[in-house]
Amino acid sequence: MATVNLADARRIIEAAEARAAEIGQPMNIAVVDAGGNLVAHVRMDGAWMGSVDISVNKAWTSRAFDIATQDLGANSQPGQQFYGIHASNHGRVMIFAGGIPLRRGGEVVGAVGVSGGTGEQDQTVAEAGAGAL
Amino acid sequence: MATVNLADARRIIEAAEARAAEIGQPMNIAVVDAGGNLVAHVRMDGAWMGSVDISVNKAWTSRAFDIATQDLGANSQPGQQFYGIHASNHGRVMIFAGGIPLRRGGEVVGAVGVSGGTGEQDQTVAEAGAGAL
Amino acid sequence: MATVNLADARRIIEAAEARAAEIGQPMNIAVVDAGGNLVAHVRMDGAWMGSVDISVNKAWTSRAFDIATQDLGANSQPGQQFYGIHASNHGRVMIFAGGIPLRRGGEVVGAVGVSGGTGEQDQTVAEAGAGAL
Amino acid sequence: MATVNLADARRIIEAAEARAAEIGQPMNIAVVDAGGNLVAHVRMDGAWMGSVDISVNKAWTSRAFDIATQDLGANSQPGQQFYGIHASNHGRVMIFAGGIPLRRGGEVVGAVGVSGGTGEQDQTVAEAGAGAL
Repeated sequence: MATVNLADARRIIEAAEARAAEIGQPMNIAVVDAGGNLVAHVRMDGAWMGSVDISVNKAWTSRAFDIATQDLGANSQPGQQFYGIHASNHGRVMIFAGGIPLRRGGEVVGAVGVSGGTGEQDQTVAEAGAGAL
Repeated sequence: MATVNLADARRIIEAAEARAAEIGQPMNIAVVDAGGNLVAHVRMDGAWMGSVDISVNKAWTSRAFDIATQDLGANSQPGQQFYGIHASNHGRVMIFAGGIPLRRGGEVVGAVGVSGGTGEQDQTVAEAGAGAL
Repeated sequence: MATVNLADARRIIEAAEARAAEIGQPMNIAVVDAGGNLVAHVRMDGAWMGSVDISVNKAWTSRAFDIATQDLGANSQPGQQFYGIHASNHGRVMIFAGGIPLRRGGEVVGAVGVSGGTGEQDQTVAEAGAGAL
Repeated sequence: MATVNLADARRIIEAAEARAAEIGQPMNIAVVDAGGNLVAHVRMDGAWMGSVDISVNKAWTSRAFDIATQDLGANSQPGQQFYGIHASNHGRVMIFAGGIPLRRGGEVVGAVGVSGGTGEQDQTVAEAGAGAL
């Protein structure tokens, strides 16, 4: 199973932090491996404490379904095909922007999850993180 | 990290109770500190028992995200940026009116949560409580 | 159903706080009604935050089984008749000292739960509270 | 309420990792702040995935009760005063070695939790972390 390791996770987090600093919004940033298990997490000073759980679970969700949480969210609104999926998996499924699968050669090797700002802010920080893989 | 103490919590609860009595609706009222941990809670005689958990978690949510639960709720409706956030944090995220962050000099030092009536009633009682900080 | 009300709970908490101050140990103190539902809780300044849940659940346990948690504990050690009961009720059953049923004319009308010190300290503070009913 | 920040947490984790490398045992290492909320976590390559939760909750427990989990454990064995405490707080209370409160000038400002080896290994790595505060 190809997977990210701690060195990868740190590089991803560093890039995400840099982007968060750039936009002036402190964030929670989490990276999970190919098994969906947490590799590393940081809460930047001043970031919301309620976002610890959300960042970890956005990462988990992105690996669990190999999809960005933003895209899963679009399919999980009332009337859409996955509406209600957020009630599954004991509250781990996050359906709003900020979670992105990490790919190497087409294969998903983990995911990054970001929480602490608007959906748009979370997304741009997660993208910066994913770009550092 | 500046935080409320028990004397603050009691003053806040007293003011909230007075407002609840004024509008004739018994309430659950809870105060958490800067770490999101419960400092004090009261259930007024006749208030709903299902609102014990809700009052505590409205307070927790307001501190966890430094936002009134009413405002978080507006961002968490279907199609909005935080839709699905209520599935996170093991069921602690409340997205309807009644939770308000407590601020001192711009810094969030805790939060108050009220539950037991309509959204409008919960909100006015929480505001009365927050005003007593 | 005869039950304590908020005025009773406050009187009980006041007496328990006075005893806690006397022995110099800050405590969490909770009172539940005849239905086992929380009426009031306080965390004295400096009391353990992990004891919020424990104080509430000691009170709940004492009402749920109409027994002091200390006595339930004696029956719940390995080899005893109730061993394993702490796994029931979703983690609400506390089997160490500090929870006491509140009785009026022989009838259990609620319970008090105290957590924040040694078993002996929790017990004496709970007794002081129960004595104020 | 004085508390650790992310820079503190990183320094603590770095020292703990160095010690883990020295004894040749990969570990999960977590740091919580004064409010008991997670600041940072790392899982070293090869460390147990079941220890993610344990490391975070050892840290939480040490702050929740201002005590090393090893010492809490000694008081939580069958027949001891806190036997059964591990059933409280929704499964967050860890009662074996590896969690240590972080103190500054006598005040608890957070805690470190380590999981991934024997109790003795977890303890020495946690101590190395705590020493870096």
